[in-house]
Amino acid sequence: MDLSLCSINTITVRSLGLRPLIDEALARGVGAVAPWRDFLATVGTDEAARLLRGSGLRVTSLCRGGMFTAADEGGRRAAIEDNLRAIDEAHAIGADCLVLVCGPLVGKDLAGSRAMVRDGILAILPHATAAGMPLGIEPLHPMMVADRSVITTRGEANDLVDLIDSPTVGVVVDAYHVWWDPYLEEQIRRAAGRILGLHVSDWVVPITDQLASRGMMGDGCIDLAGLVRSVRGAGYAGPVEIEILSDHWWSQPPAQVLDLALERFVSAI
Amino acid sequence: MDLSLCSINTITVRSLGLRPLIDEALARGVGAVAPWRDFLATVGTDEAARLLRGSGLRVTSLCRGGMFTAADEGGRRAAIEDNLRAIDEAHAIGADCLVLVCGPLVGKDLAGSRAMVRDGILAILPHATAAGMPLGIEPLHPMMVADRSVITTRGEANDLVDLIDSPTVGVVVDAYHVWWDPYLEEQIRRAAGRILGLHVSDWVVPITDQLASRGMMGDGCIDLAGLVRSVRGAGYAGPVEIEILSDHWWSQPPAQVLDLALERFVSAI
Repeated sequence: MDLSLCSINTITVRSLGLRPLIDEALARGVGAVAPWRDFLATVGTDEAARLLRGSGLRVTSLCRGGMFTAADEGGRRAAIEDNLRAIDEAHAIGADCLVLVCGPLVGKDLAGSRAMVRDGILAILPHATAAGMPLGIEPLHPMMVADRSVITTRGEANDLVDLIDSPTVGVVVDAYHVWWDPYLEEQIRRAAGRILGLHVSDWVVPITDQLASRGMMGDGCIDLAGLVRSVRGAGYAGPVEIEILSDHWWSQPPAQVLDLALERFVSAI
Repeated sequence: MDLSLCSINTITVRSLGLRPLIDEALARGVGAVAPWRDFLATVGTDEAARLLRGSGLRVTSLCRGGMFTAADEGGRRAAIEDNLRAIDEAHAIGADCLVLVCGPLVGKDLAGSRAMVRDGILAILPHATAAGMPLGIEPLHPMMVADRSVITTRGEANDLVDLIDSPTVGVVVDAYHVWWDPYLEEQIRRAAGRILGLHVSDWVVPITDQLASRGMMGDGCIDLAGLVRSVRGAGYAGPVEIEILSDHWWSQPPAQVLDLALERFVSAI
């Protein structure tokens, strides 16, 4: 795929600062970036907004809101407050959407935890709608249900979008999380018109760390070209984010990681 | 649950030999055991069959057949031959079913790999039917799709059972693999009359090794009592297998592991 349709997620080269990342993206003809919030915090939201808006780069997402689940009412309220701030930050930097990593299991109650996610999204929906900030529900791999997200499959994310039924709420497709799903294609078709983002990395065995074992595109077993075709077929025409959380790639010089990632972006996707 | 409805899977205390395991089970009032094939191989199938049939213990399953996926025709044929032997072994020891761990992804072709699984089961079906040996499709956790099984969810296992449409083929429910699934309850109801076995362990974070990180029942976040209720509600009345693959528990004295596992079986399930 052409690099004008590439977005570099900051986590992929997290040792770079925001200005160096913008410079790298511009120098390489990359069309977009996507920051994590802690990455913005290093320069402050106002300065980040100034740099990003001044760069002419598209900002495909802010990662992340969500984490709505908590054992008590105070925890859930704090999460909602934090999401309202995240919406403001996403708006400030002109992001296409705020990614929602929905939050882990509380106790042993999957249904109850999933209800907390639904209630949390409903609670922040008016603010997101007023800000014109789309919320992208990103289902995470089922191996992360106890750590990060009780929302696991594309089908479940679609169900949640249908239930909430607001033009502000859509879904984000991340290859690493959903590639294994036997119902993936039909659920991507079902999400047509509601896909807010597409993230790529690869599944390289062995997975030694659930969070930070993501592979470089082309090194693993995900049919990324097929996935991108499906998502394009469902109408998503925006950039594709390279989001690689990897202890291995974080230990390499960021410019070299970008070299390889962009080469693979062009050749493998 | 009463120990008469407990089955000890040999992998849980794999350092025990077959005769010591049988003695432990009988001494503790456990109603059943479930061997892995390599465990049988240590004494030979004939001797294992003599010991098991003489013990009066029920044998809930033989683990495992399957592994139908392979890059070439020769590999797939070898897998089928091995499954025919596994059916004979399961028959010899009087197992309730042969568990199928269906086989990992080949290349990047999920659909093709899943078709190999279907074709493999169809190829061994006449022999299993003639032997009166039920085949239990066990979906594995999606994190194992590149290593062990392209059949991942209860829904997918049910689809496969419907497609094959033979009274010889059913499903096995393993808590560790399927607990996270938002559609679990409806898919267990859908499997009513076709559930051949129920395996328990627990999900204890962090999962440091995908294969051998299973937790002791009650130590983790799976609602085992709820799962067992669902499976009982779908008509499965047989024993529940304790199947804990764990580097931690394997490093402990097997008699102590059994003490704790049976205590938890009674209190937590």
